[in-house]
Amino acid sequence: MSGNTIGSLFRVTTWGESHGAGIGAVVDGCPAGLDITREEIQKALDRRKPGHLLSETSRREEDLVEILSGVFENKTTGTPISLLIRNRDQESRAYDRLKELYRPGHGDYTYSRKYGIRDHRGGGRASGRETAARVAAGAVAEKIIRQSGMDVLAYTIMLGGISIDRGKNINVSHEIVDANPLKCPDTEASLLMERKLAAVREDGDTVGGIVEIVVRGCPTGLGEPVFDKLDADLAKALMGIGTVKGVEIGAGFDAAGKTGSENNDILTSEGYLTNHAGGILAGISNGNDIVIRVACKPIPSIAKLQRCLDKSGQEVEYAISGRHDVCVIPRIIPVCEAMVSIVLADHLLRNRAVRI
Amino acid sequence: MSGNTIGSLFRVTTWGESHGAGIGAVVDGCPAGLDITREEIQKALDRRKPGHLLSETSRREEDLVEILSGVFENKTTGTPISLLIRNRDQESRAYDRLKELYRPGHGDYTYSRKYGIRDHRGGGRASGRETAARVAAGAVAEKIIRQSGMDVLAYTIMLGGISIDRGKNINVSHEIVDANPLKCPDTEASLLMERKLAAVREDGDTVGGIVEIVVRGCPTGLGEPVFDKLDADLAKALMGIGTVKGVEIGAGFDAAGKTGSENNDILTSEGYLTNHAGGILAGISNGNDIVIRVACKPIPSIAKLQRCLDKSGQEVEYAISGRHDVCVIPRIIPVCEAMVSIVLADHLLRNRAVRI
Amino acid sequence: MSGNTIGSLFRVTTWGESHGAGIGAVVDGCPAGLDITREEIQKALDRRKPGHLLSETSRREEDLVEILSGVFENKTTGTPISLLIRNRDQESRAYDRLKELYRPGHGDYTYSRKYGIRDHRGGGRASGRETAARVAAGAVAEKIIRQSGMDVLAYTIMLGGISIDRGKNINVSHEIVDANPLKCPDTEASLLMERKLAAVREDGDTVGGIVEIVVRGCPTGLGEPVFDKLDADLAKALMGIGTVKGVEIGAGFDAAGKTGSENNDILTSEGYLTNHAGGILAGISNGNDIVIRVACKPIPSIAKLQRCLDKSGQEVEYAISGRHDVCVIPRIIPVCEAMVSIVLADHLLRNRAVRI
Amino acid sequence: MSGNTIGSLFRVTTWGESHGAGIGAVVDGCPAGLDITREEIQKALDRRKPGHLLSETSRREEDLVEILSGVFENKTTGTPISLLIRNRDQESRAYDRLKELYRPGHGDYTYSRKYGIRDHRGGGRASGRETAARVAAGAVAEKIIRQSGMDVLAYTIMLGGISIDRGKNINVSHEIVDANPLKCPDTEASLLMERKLAAVREDGDTVGGIVEIVVRGCPTGLGEPVFDKLDADLAKALMGIGTVKGVEIGAGFDAAGKTGSENNDILTSEGYLTNHAGGILAGISNGNDIVIRVACKPIPSIAKLQRCLDKSGQEVEYAISGRHDVCVIPRIIPVCEAMVSIVLADHLLRNRAVRI
Repeated sequence: MSGNTIGSLFRVTTWGESHGAGIGAVVDGCPAGLDITREEIQKALDRRKPGHLLSETSRREEDLVEILSGVFENKTTGTPISLLIRNRDQESRAYDRLKELYRPGHGDYTYSRKYGIRDHRGGGRASGRETAARVAAGAVAEKIIRQSGMDVLAYTIMLGGISIDRGKNINVSHEIVDANPLKCPDTEASLLMERKLAAVREDGDTVGGIVEIVVRGCPTGLGEPVFDKLDADLAKALMGIGTVKGVEIGAGFDAAGKTGSENNDILTSEGYLTNHAGGILAGISNGNDIVIRVACKPIPSIAKLQRCLDKSGQEVEYAISGRHDVCVIPRIIPVCEAMVSIVLADHLLRNRAVRI
Repeated sequence: MSGNTIGSLFRVTTWGESHGAGIGAVVDGCPAGLDITREEIQKALDRRKPGHLLSETSRREEDLVEILSGVFENKTTGTPISLLIRNRDQESRAYDRLKELYRPGHGDYTYSRKYGIRDHRGGGRASGRETAARVAAGAVAEKIIRQSGMDVLAYTIMLGGISIDRGKNINVSHEIVDANPLKCPDTEASLLMERKLAAVREDGDTVGGIVEIVVRGCPTGLGEPVFDKLDADLAKALMGIGTVKGVEIGAGFDAAGKTGSENNDILTSEGYLTNHAGGILAGISNGNDIVIRVACKPIPSIAKLQRCLDKSGQEVEYAISGRHDVCVIPRIIPVCEAMVSIVLADHLLRNRAVRI
Repeated sequence: MSGNTIGSLFRVTTWGESHGAGIGAVVDGCPAGLDITREEIQKALDRRKPGHLLSETSRREEDLVEILSGVFENKTTGTPISLLIRNRDQESRAYDRLKELYRPGHGDYTYSRKYGIRDHRGGGRASGRETAARVAAGAVAEKIIRQSGMDVLAYTIMLGGISIDRGKNINVSHEIVDANPLKCPDTEASLLMERKLAAVREDGDTVGGIVEIVVRGCPTGLGEPVFDKLDADLAKALMGIGTVKGVEIGAGFDAAGKTGSENNDILTSEGYLTNHAGGILAGISNGNDIVIRVACKPIPSIAKLQRCLDKSGQEVEYAISGRHDVCVIPRIIPVCEAMVSIVLADHLLRNRAVRI
Repeated sequence: MSGNTIGSLFRVTTWGESHGAGIGAVVDGCPAGLDITREEIQKALDRRKPGHLLSETSRREEDLVEILSGVFENKTTGTPISLLIRNRDQESRAYDRLKELYRPGHGDYTYSRKYGIRDHRGGGRASGRETAARVAAGAVAEKIIRQSGMDVLAYTIMLGGISIDRGKNINVSHEIVDANPLKCPDTEASLLMERKLAAVREDGDTVGGIVEIVVRGCPTGLGEPVFDKLDADLAKALMGIGTVKGVEIGAGFDAAGKTGSENNDILTSEGYLTNHAGGILAGISNGNDIVIRVACKPIPSIAKLQRCLDKSGQEVEYAISGRHDVCVIPRIIPVCEAMVSIVLADHLLRNRAVRI
């Protein structure tokens, strides 16, 4: 009930603060007999590392994951899988000043007001670092859904106001996306994005963007009406990423401007003619690709001076010192994939119980 | 786990099909001692009725709610509140043809594939009628949060492609919204919307729209990091309405195009200067108005002929006979308010447990 | 979280007070495609009726169940099954005196202290009447587990201090148990029990007893370590019946006095030689009969004068007027079966998710 | 749903196998602002260590707990508390023979049948070692309930068939219990128990016993009718300890043999005259001491030769080599206290939500 667990049958609980001893996840409900190695989970974590060109985080995050339980001789045993990632960088003096500050766009103020106490070091639990635990857990989920033929792929479609060109009918594959430094399948747009990033960095500012996630091979029937619709659970999982301020499925907000005759996907004997529904009808997957988009806000930590309040209620000026990321994209990409994989693994298991 | 319950401490379970004996909700976890009358719940339900001008549903829905338990001498007792709304209109022959059809944009196909069986009458459980049970339960939630000073107000900001004029700095209040047939606070835009509706109806088509929901008076501190962030739970609750295809908080998708210095809300000793966050920071309410927008797709039941599949896999042509709604707006308005109220009531109670 | 729901995948929520409009249950998570009729559920309810010889309840309980949803053409559809039993007897004046009294052995005092308000009529939610909703829901559960070859049978092994003769190697079957007015498989003991009941009734007092429940045909593998062990969930479900003060599995409290070599059940190629474990090892069913015993306290409502407190803190004397049951046995028998069936149905579904 | 989590608001998830990397617990929902130190948790763990006289486990368990998250400057922050206990003794060759054996009284057979795979080393997850994680989590719970004036005390009332003398009106306190090597408040009985243990050990056998748990200072009002009654949740929590085969509250099984007039606790203006209810009425604490008894079976691992099956279905003979505990008492005592504390902490928080 305290919000650190997601899922019904495939349940992920994360714990840990940015500058505590470590972070981790307990994955409960993973079916027994699944092949999994530490290296596979490590590989997923490595994808989250800042690229060498784009890296703006001075912090050296060598996130080494350890499997503490639930896996025996490289197979899951049906017992909880405990994953531990030690924090290498517990040097917290750099954050001492934060102790007294409520930074704009951060959870400093709301955490303090809610709990009356706050681990201020590096954002504590509200830090993006927490998402590493999600990625580790997501790697387990991804193995499960892949066995059922599903594939989850996220990529950048907008960054700093620059969108990919939908008219070009861009090819989207893991290879193409992984090869691009911004995880953008449109290389021309990607170049403009990189330029934009450089300019924004120069300016001491940050930008946001939009990520699209496509699930291929999702079997028909996943999703539990009426409150745990597949799209509802996906929306929650993605909106639960700190940076996300909007989620849409299929045609999304565009659907609101269409007529019924335009928006309806006609089902023929060869399948659906269109996919405005984004692969989900009445909360249940319909066999089409699931298509989701999430809006990521710009990172609130900027090098420019900003006004903010300190604990005593005094207004002060504050600027991020040191080097920070200019955009959560592309680092958010594997987090989005992880959250979607976790929801799908959960619904895949839940769907086993619906027929006598 | 079957998706018919929402909430952790304030829990709402709905049940019922469009053309079965009735629909209803069990509200569990409502604190004892709350004043509530049948009439208050009835009044909320009545708001959901189609307006006389706009009504396109021939079906006469006199939704009379009965409180079966949990209320004694007009006070809640802390035991489950069971609410029953009998279906007046169980005449299901009109739907006999649906038995064999998978209508576009409806759950016919996905329900059949998921469960292997389907109550085809009027959409069964996937019918919009199920939302009446949510509205009844929401009336209880609304009483709870109102006691804590909260007020939830939803209204139309786009319909059929026509948006309200944000530049006009429109006054939004319950009185203004309720007085408008389309629940739109911009009367000029509302007239255009009405004209659009008439044209679309003439054309045998339907349209969608966008609803904005504002929560005023929300105390600071609601929301449970990291997965049950207040925005995450709101997104789930709203995306769980059949018609909703997108949800955004505060600046939402627009935030993705802004810089950090533009998007950060500066907290001063007099409060926040802006509200791009939409009242939620790091998943916790920050004391500002909570602002949410949801995209509603056009109603899939249109009078125009459409291709669809029947159970045997044959393609057939199908058109809605009888009269149906042209847009879920404004009927969806009280449903949105109900879902938001339910989430807030739940988080209000959850927040009681966070400090020693 | 308010305690009115039991089960994870097969979830039963009951609602209703003794003298409100009615009582009922929502069964969520019942798999689609299960054959079920109103009459089957009614039949289970009828078993709960006081026998004509033993009936001491003047109240005429014609519990007629109505299926409001989730069943279509006598098959479950996978949507919530809402069951309604109207209270015929809402004549609550007989209970007016209770309004001010905290009866010994009843929840009057604790409910008042917990909620600050109480529906005093007939015990309100704490009334044994609530268990009728469990029996109705249990009838659905029983259909599910029967399909997997399971059979649940409860019977009286002690009543008013008179125990069945274990040495006799008594035959226990549904036919034998149902044919006995006290649901006791030992007819000689049963006669003594009846005599005891008559004497106790004469005395204006009540008695308790012990019920044994046997599950035959339970497949190996049900139960989720470590907290949701099958025996743990059974213990909770049974201890959650108002009258139950003790639960034991297999050898139970006797096991505490045995040595390991006595108590261990030896597994041979022909199966277990003994069943001290009561069919559950390390929380998981082992294929043997599951054997449970529950201790039922004597009914607290007695015709003898008793001291008790009223609301103002004054001591008063109080005696039950009218005629009441002398023992919860045999009426508790179908309730025990229902609770066990609900737990087994839930674990049967949960067990579908444990292997890849 | 996989059974490794207990609690609704105060939630404890344990993970870990006997001979894996370690075991641990995630405590979620602990209120912020609670004083807690690593040493306090360590102290609770140390109580679980085998006493020097009684120790029959050759394994050197130096259970050192580490707090990985959720505590900052010795105060809880409201975020999940992750507790890690490394396994010192991962030498698993001693268990190689178990790989092929289904030991009597152990979960070997049921785990294999359920999951199709099993970490056989030292019993894996079914090992008593898992309870160390419960004790660590229970130390947090204990701090919470102590702040509300509650005190949980468990002690031995029967061991190997030797019971304490209830007639002596024995004084029970933490000091008296802790001072006794068998945690038995009756020193005379304790001496007989020790002698019995010595004889049984000599014989290569084991014994069981009965533990009584008393909660003092429990406020009135804890417990959620109807399924999550306080006694129901206690029964589940205690029956979920591997060794427990029976649970009773207050008069328990004895109540079944009493009359109503004997068993009713009379409430006077000075409080209850008796406590047959064991402090819980209609599932809600009534302000009296809560009294629970649990039956512990004899340890199944005995030095005597026993028949058992191996994986291939062959019957073999098997005897425990090395030295093992002769009785789970007194080591189970802190586990019982931990489970009761966890349930009480949970219900204490849940009770905050019951009134408007």
